[in-house]
Amino acid sequence: MMRLNVGLIGVGRLGRVYARDLSSRIAHTRLVAVADTNENLAREVAAEFDVPRSYGAPAKLIEDAGVDAVVIVSPTHTHRDLVVAALKAKKPTFCEKPPALSLAEAMEMANAEKQTGTFFQMGFMRRFDPGYASAKRQVEEGRIGRPVVFKATSRDPFPPSLAYADPKSSGGIFIDMGIHDFDLARWFMGDVARVQAVGAVLAFPELATVGDRDNVIATLTFADGRLGVVDLTRNGFYGYDISTDLLGTEGTIRVGYIRETPVLLMTKNSVAHDTVPYFMERFERAYTLQLENFAENVLKGRKAPVTIQDGVEALRVAVAATRACDTGQRVEVSSIVT
Amino acid sequence: MMRLNVGLIGVGRLGRVYARDLSSRIAHTRLVAVADTNENLAREVAAEFDVPRSYGAPAKLIEDAGVDAVVIVSPTHTHRDLVVAALKAKKPTFCEKPPALSLAEAMEMANAEKQTGTFFQMGFMRRFDPGYASAKRQVEEGRIGRPVVFKATSRDPFPPSLAYADPKSSGGIFIDMGIHDFDLARWFMGDVARVQAVGAVLAFPELATVGDRDNVIATLTFADGRLGVVDLTRNGFYGYDISTDLLGTEGTIRVGYIRETPVLLMTKNSVAHDTVPYFMERFERAYTLQLENFAENVLKGRKAPVTIQDGVEALRVAVAATRACDTGQRVEVSSIVT
Amino acid sequence: MMRLNVGLIGVGRLGRVYARDLSSRIAHTRLVAVADTNENLAREVAAEFDVPRSYGAPAKLIEDAGVDAVVIVSPTHTHRDLVVAALKAKKPTFCEKPPALSLAEAMEMANAEKQTGTFFQMGFMRRFDPGYASAKRQVEEGRIGRPVVFKATSRDPFPPSLAYADPKSSGGIFIDMGIHDFDLARWFMGDVARVQAVGAVLAFPELATVGDRDNVIATLTFADGRLGVVDLTRNGFYGYDISTDLLGTEGTIRVGYIRETPVLLMTKNSVAHDTVPYFMERFERAYTLQLENFAENVLKGRKAPVTIQDGVEALRVAVAATRACDTGQRVEVSSIVT
Amino acid sequence: MMRLNVGLIGVGRLGRVYARDLSSRIAHTRLVAVADTNENLAREVAAEFDVPRSYGAPAKLIEDAGVDAVVIVSPTHTHRDLVVAALKAKKPTFCEKPPALSLAEAMEMANAEKQTGTFFQMGFMRRFDPGYASAKRQVEEGRIGRPVVFKATSRDPFPPSLAYADPKSSGGIFIDMGIHDFDLARWFMGDVARVQAVGAVLAFPELATVGDRDNVIATLTFADGRLGVVDLTRNGFYGYDISTDLLGTEGTIRVGYIRETPVLLMTKNSVAHDTVPYFMERFERAYTLQLENFAENVLKGRKAPVTIQDGVEALRVAVAATRACDTGQRVEVSSIVT
Repeated sequence: MMRLNVGLIGVGRLGRVYARDLSSRIAHTRLVAVADTNENLAREVAAEFDVPRSYGAPAKLIEDAGVDAVVIVSPTHTHRDLVVAALKAKKPTFCEKPPALSLAEAMEMANAEKQTGTFFQMGFMRRFDPGYASAKRQVEEGRIGRPVVFKATSRDPFPPSLAYADPKSSGGIFIDMGIHDFDLARWFMGDVARVQAVGAVLAFPELATVGDRDNVIATLTFADGRLGVVDLTRNGFYGYDISTDLLGTEGTIRVGYIRETPVLLMTKNSVAHDTVPYFMERFERAYTLQLENFAENVLKGRKAPVTIQDGVEALRVAVAATRACDTGQRVEVSSIVT
Repeated sequence: MMRLNVGLIGVGRLGRVYARDLSSRIAHTRLVAVADTNENLAREVAAEFDVPRSYGAPAKLIEDAGVDAVVIVSPTHTHRDLVVAALKAKKPTFCEKPPALSLAEAMEMANAEKQTGTFFQMGFMRRFDPGYASAKRQVEEGRIGRPVVFKATSRDPFPPSLAYADPKSSGGIFIDMGIHDFDLARWFMGDVARVQAVGAVLAFPELATVGDRDNVIATLTFADGRLGVVDLTRNGFYGYDISTDLLGTEGTIRVGYIRETPVLLMTKNSVAHDTVPYFMERFERAYTLQLENFAENVLKGRKAPVTIQDGVEALRVAVAATRACDTGQRVEVSSIVT
Repeated sequence: MMRLNVGLIGVGRLGRVYARDLSSRIAHTRLVAVADTNENLAREVAAEFDVPRSYGAPAKLIEDAGVDAVVIVSPTHTHRDLVVAALKAKKPTFCEKPPALSLAEAMEMANAEKQTGTFFQMGFMRRFDPGYASAKRQVEEGRIGRPVVFKATSRDPFPPSLAYADPKSSGGIFIDMGIHDFDLARWFMGDVARVQAVGAVLAFPELATVGDRDNVIATLTFADGRLGVVDLTRNGFYGYDISTDLLGTEGTIRVGYIRETPVLLMTKNSVAHDTVPYFMERFERAYTLQLENFAENVLKGRKAPVTIQDGVEALRVAVAATRACDTGQRVEVSSIVT
Repeated sequence: MMRLNVGLIGVGRLGRVYARDLSSRIAHTRLVAVADTNENLAREVAAEFDVPRSYGAPAKLIEDAGVDAVVIVSPTHTHRDLVVAALKAKKPTFCEKPPALSLAEAMEMANAEKQTGTFFQMGFMRRFDPGYASAKRQVEEGRIGRPVVFKATSRDPFPPSLAYADPKSSGGIFIDMGIHDFDLARWFMGDVARVQAVGAVLAFPELATVGDRDNVIATLTFADGRLGVVDLTRNGFYGYDISTDLLGTEGTIRVGYIRETPVLLMTKNSVAHDTVPYFMERFERAYTLQLENFAENVLKGRKAPVTIQDGVEALRVAVAATRACDTGQRVEVSSIVT
């Protein structure tokens, strides 16, 4: 099979995993360049994965004639400029979620995609998780009739750093963490019309200093009147726990597990198992499959299964939920335009 | 041990179980009389459980000098009159949930209790379920630190009859079904300050004809700012499923199971177990323990662990949720006064 | 419905539960007499459950003209004499497992049943457990094709007292504990032709002083060549754990659970639930259903679903396993005649 | 880090996975040559994984001066010759289980290792599974006290081909399939002194034509008197199921799961999940970790954690079990010398 020569921008924690996948786990990609504003890190990761070229300036990578496609895993606030540049350079582009911190920026990305006609794929890895993919397939096969209620829970086992949590860099919990659930909501149920939300700082008082919350709950009313609820917490101390229920007119599908190794410790009046430490243990395979899918789509000229519009709309719901939480009022998602 | 001579009003489906428990499962009660406006049914149940006296008129049972205490399991709209009469007759009284269909009626019951000083115990059987009781104990022992988020889900495997679902007789899904979850919320977390809610008819269109909903979701903000969410559905087709999560500052407690017999059927690429058919299979023991507790409280002169005020307040939250759902607005629970 | 007037012999720990069931949980029995060689205990239990008559001498109970049927829960070494006496008195009789400590005694009981033609039902309560009953039904419906391998595990959470464990009174672990599994084996698979076994004292050295073992494993070859394995342990410290697998030609059925309450405690890297404390928590319902079945069989003139021959044959396998374990040799079950 | 230049012999189904791991998943190996008697296949796999050299003759690979270490995944009957040749060539060698089809051959391999002093590591991948590794660690930490009973179950979801099942090529079910469990037994509990076994053809009559069995059960008595039981089946139709219980003097550890994706399908009175399809889905990570460990051991001059002696002894137990099953007699493991 032909291989896609990929350039990777951003090689922090998650970027390193992408580097590993693109260089060795995916049969039809070749990682030919990495870029990071931390040039030493770029050089180090290039050495680790036998990547021919490394850059301190992402723009250089985008210009690199040997780079057929660009994968962007840099900090969220850089997404807009990098995506727009890559699309203008006619390089098929993949960008990690969330698309941007503001809807305005995300819409600029969408415009660039439209104007350039360049391939763009949004990164929502849960759609590639074998569990969620199987659930989607089963729903489409009619195994639960028509899904009418969507319920999603995301629990982190510890809070982010204050620097990270700062809504100025993360967008706040609804955008940073909830966007995955809002994307799932749209994937399974379609567009969201209205949200209500509550939230508070209940476990980590320090989060209040940067204006983030550690526990939030949002109810969703879909465009066709169906219902949903998303709850997020940073104090899932026991482990990383992502679970989703779809209630249908003939059955229910539940996706979720919280067990890492197949070991039960059975002692006096107790049977215990361990938990999933964090998102990489839960979604490692999804990340790989997502990049594999991106490469195949580009190589075979397929349409992107997750579009910039998906990114824009999930972000719009997240911004609406943030506003609903701030004001205590129900918010029409369509009213969110920036 | 001394035995409490109990009179039972209402011997429909649930009342019959109460009759069985009071006559044979509880060491310190003796069922001496049953009453039902369906006098034949009263006679029949009396015969089945060797109950000495049966009445068509509940008032007769209340007056019966041989009846030391009254247990009321009649339709909700009759609760107010029967409870007030029993309390005025100075008979210690137990009344099945919900206290009444309107807050005004419930408050009349609370007044009667206050004025007569007669013992009254509200029926919220989940508090006596070994699972919920153990969870409560573990929370009090500090096993999860301070609980900060309360999540409860109740799923019925099928819808009620239209006659039953009619909000005029059931109060609607928030009152009929949700009151259990609102009571649990208060039991674990204290008073609720505000609610938001969404709801719709999504699985059983016929429910719209009587004005009820089949799926609703309410978010709760407790008086001290902690958070909660309750979701209810009538289309839990797979089985009866009641589950509750308490997220604390050091751990989480989950109560809930959906498996009836300990049998796994393992066939080609599938491992399956059965489910809990309905509430009696799930809470049979809780009902018995609740009546046992009532009898002990009366015999030993203890205070009621579940009061009419608990009934009033859970109902107030349910009414607030109904109103929030009707209006799409956040509702202050304290604003509900009738 | 007509009620069966039952006399109960033996009111120790298990007998007391039988007294409760016969007096109050089973609609069609009336407990009219109890007997125990500890006459005070008999009197006490009679008082507790409003039983009209109590005896110190079991023979008196058997003679009692008001006693229509006899239920025997006395120590195993007394079974033979009591059962024979009851059968000769033409009283339909139920006897708790094991039938006797020696095969010779058990066969005397079988002879008495044959000669008197009196109804006799053997007590193997697992057959009445909703889980095992459902498994049996599903096997008969062909859900797993033809079952070809039987696997059973029984774990006690603590060892018996030395007095109890003494093979002179209990028969040893294969007879005392294993007989349930051997009966299940026969119920699901038919007669056992050969056994091999190993066993040792591994956790409770004191058991060696009375000649019992705390861990044993027996392999079974059924008469038609199908296979089985039974393992028993006294050191199931975590809780009482009974589980059975049936491997068929199209699927597998597993019966077994080890969880008591529906509570999960989720703390740092651990999700834990409790366990089933002991046999009564696991099989309470099975005991009740078993007595209910006995009463119905007698009242309706049905055949006993569990016969003295079932008791004899399960005991024969247990004795064969004991001998195989003692000698290290494979033992033909048919070679066991005393 | 320095990289180990590895040559891989055998690129059938499992060998291909080894090729992928050695070429891309393991940071410190470089796959420099592959050999297979099917030379075209060798060439094809070399192309797929960018391997510089491919050979039709394994001897050529062993001689290849650029090959620092040899990994052997060829059919079992070729192991002896290849291992001996590789060891004589002073190439550190890894060989997939079982070591050989006869004990005599395995002992020749052991002799070659002794005489040449070359590093050799036996492939028993379960020891590298995160689940089994965690269980081992917890046992060593004393979490269950002293383990006294070992129970292992292995279930294949379908039978092998007749060609494969033929004991002349596979060694029969105890050797082919059971050797993993016998190795686990020795790893957790030490040497096995005696075995008893039963077995039969119960689900796949065609297996009788080649002299294999589809269901077997072996009891183990360890050298110090502790006990074990291993049961194997080819008719685990529902899925691949490997589970192990260790009963200790203070608790029990269970390793095993049968669920592949985190999806529950909940329909009328049923909750179902999928199963693990086959061994690669269950042990993929263990295979990778095992090769990673081999490479590290060679590079850092560490001793092999799994030795040819482990292979010899596990095989000895498997042969003993086969003999016990054939004869119906208890077999002393030490009596097996060829």
